[in-house]
Amino acid sequence: MDYKQSGVDIDAGQEVVARIAGLARSTATAGVLSEIGSYGGLFHLGARDYRDPVLVSSADGVGTKLRVALLARRHRGIGHDLVNHCVNDILVQGAEPLFFLDYLATGRLSPDVAVEVVEGLADACRVNGCALIGGETAEMPGFYADGDYDLAGFIVGAVDRTRLIDGRDLVPGDRLVGLPASGLHTNGYSLARSIVFDRAGLGVHAVVPEIGTSIADALLAPHRTYLPAVRPLLRDDRAGSGSPVKAMAHITGGGITDNLPRVLPAGTAARIERDTWSIPPIFTWLQHLGSVGDAEMFRTFNMGIGFVLVCADAEVEGVVDALREAGEADARVIGRLVRAEPGDAERRVSYE
Amino acid sequence: MDYKQSGVDIDAGQEVVARIAGLARSTATAGVLSEIGSYGGLFHLGARDYRDPVLVSSADGVGTKLRVALLARRHRGIGHDLVNHCVNDILVQGAEPLFFLDYLATGRLSPDVAVEVVEGLADACRVNGCALIGGETAEMPGFYADGDYDLAGFIVGAVDRTRLIDGRDLVPGDRLVGLPASGLHTNGYSLARSIVFDRAGLGVHAVVPEIGTSIADALLAPHRTYLPAVRPLLRDDRAGSGSPVKAMAHITGGGITDNLPRVLPAGTAARIERDTWSIPPIFTWLQHLGSVGDAEMFRTFNMGIGFVLVCADAEVEGVVDALREAGEADARVIGRLVRAEPGDAERRVSYE
Repeated sequence: MDYKQSGVDIDAGQEVVARIAGLARSTATAGVLSEIGSYGGLFHLGARDYRDPVLVSSADGVGTKLRVALLARRHRGIGHDLVNHCVNDILVQGAEPLFFLDYLATGRLSPDVAVEVVEGLADACRVNGCALIGGETAEMPGFYADGDYDLAGFIVGAVDRTRLIDGRDLVPGDRLVGLPASGLHTNGYSLARSIVFDRAGLGVHAVVPEIGTSIADALLAPHRTYLPAVRPLLRDDRAGSGSPVKAMAHITGGGITDNLPRVLPAGTAARIERDTWSIPPIFTWLQHLGSVGDAEMFRTFNMGIGFVLVCADAEVEGVVDALREAGEADARVIGRLVRAEPGDAERRVSYE
Repeated sequence: MDYKQSGVDIDAGQEVVARIAGLARSTATAGVLSEIGSYGGLFHLGARDYRDPVLVSSADGVGTKLRVALLARRHRGIGHDLVNHCVNDILVQGAEPLFFLDYLATGRLSPDVAVEVVEGLADACRVNGCALIGGETAEMPGFYADGDYDLAGFIVGAVDRTRLIDGRDLVPGDRLVGLPASGLHTNGYSLARSIVFDRAGLGVHAVVPEIGTSIADALLAPHRTYLPAVRPLLRDDRAGSGSPVKAMAHITGGGITDNLPRVLPAGTAARIERDTWSIPPIFTWLQHLGSVGDAEMFRTFNMGIGFVLVCADAEVEGVVDALREAGEADARVIGRLVRAEPGDAERRVSYE
């Protein structure tokens, strides 16, 4: 017997590693010391100008959006999804990305699919100025159905300690600024798939008049990055008083309802004004097709708002202007912080 | 419809997150600023005394050793396996671990299994002085069979730039020092399972006289850490001349045959003296049971040597003594570097 008979092909794995190494090289930034293939990825922090760096890290997956990608045989966008999701997660604390590693597991490795996924990772790493410096490609015969894979990402970024954004200064009266989502991002796909494929019996290539595109195009729209829009605000230190941004929330699993409370200090609650933005057609279509209640929608999907910034009322005009200058034409105030009333512990976010 | 009907239970997920947060707290070290539940894990590098830090990172899984753990319903050791594997991977470049994050994906989350896995991660993190500062627990209905899960780990460590170990100074004549493995570690399980369960038809609880234990005990022996043994040598800077260790290799997938060449500079090859250590009974038993050739065994399993250090001939006695002083009674010279002969490009490691 040999290892290949038992379901693991070391040579195919090495071919993939070689192709991935080329993609990784295309993402190199100041600080990268190693190439993929050495045991660890090396990043020289002194190549960046941090005075007192705090490392900010996050691990994420893409969830069952993968099933849609597998049905549509489109894998590159999954790489964008994963990197951008990770970038946004560390951005909420003010960090800019340094490097990224992935974990790609399959039953039997398809070199072409693996390379397509990593092409997507590399695309998004370049856009975000984040180096792809390592990863693991695992064959797990018996764990994944034929052609299936799972993908996880790990990101490390940094922020100078004095610029760390932690929401400590939030007070009632602060304003919430929303940035538009580019689709479902990477959350709510178990419910969306259940509605679209199981309940409505639609195929992935079906074109839906209400949303103006195919199911695949709508559900695979890549999770966008908020780094280019938000970065100028983090560096806005002209008055020496730090950034006007007091806190941020990335609207992921759990929607605005569960994500905003993660950055709210005790005693504060959020009021969202629902008529300040138009909920994109994909969400209203899913809601009607699945007969889903409003509260469940806002606790499952981002509903068109993918990222929220919190700032003082006096700063909000400047923050919205800066975001618009950075290309976010649809940046807008979507609500405010209020004093939490007794009983609000269970309901830190309300909609009006 | 709601999200729970579609197969994802956010409340169960939040219960697990709360239990995991307590385990993570037990691993906190100097530098940890955040608790699990915030978007990113925060680590303040200034809490450690690095002059010019290089961050060394690695992503890993545990492979199909998971199948054995699932059969035996023992999950804690899988956590030890993953952390120690990651710690050893960055140790080869001289790095000590700072922090760790995990990705745990299931079809439907079993809170007890998830907590048992993370208990194992936390145990091993404490032993290695590595903080568990984040992770992702994903429910992926339809991706994993009932009860199955996959687990990936991500580690970041640091080493001062002048202490980085990169094998650049290796020359023919250097000696190879081997440290014993604690079992199969986390590699070769697809072949081992194929031999034991498919070919021999044994059950996971069968006791095997040749190895003196049950299949479960033998195959689930945790992947050990080499950090406590090797750390004193990395800090051995009494003469100001740096560590006597020139290079290291963690013997993972591909065995000594594929791992040692990863640190060998062009023009060098390795000769392993096979009679310098006794191959543990688990490997000889698997070899006979599966009729596996010698070359395939050495390219699949660690064969009892889990970690290799390379040093100058003049230093080797001191290195072995230091390892024995650190508790490695079985540290021993297992071979040497030689000049690569024409044609050796394909055969960088040979056995005699």
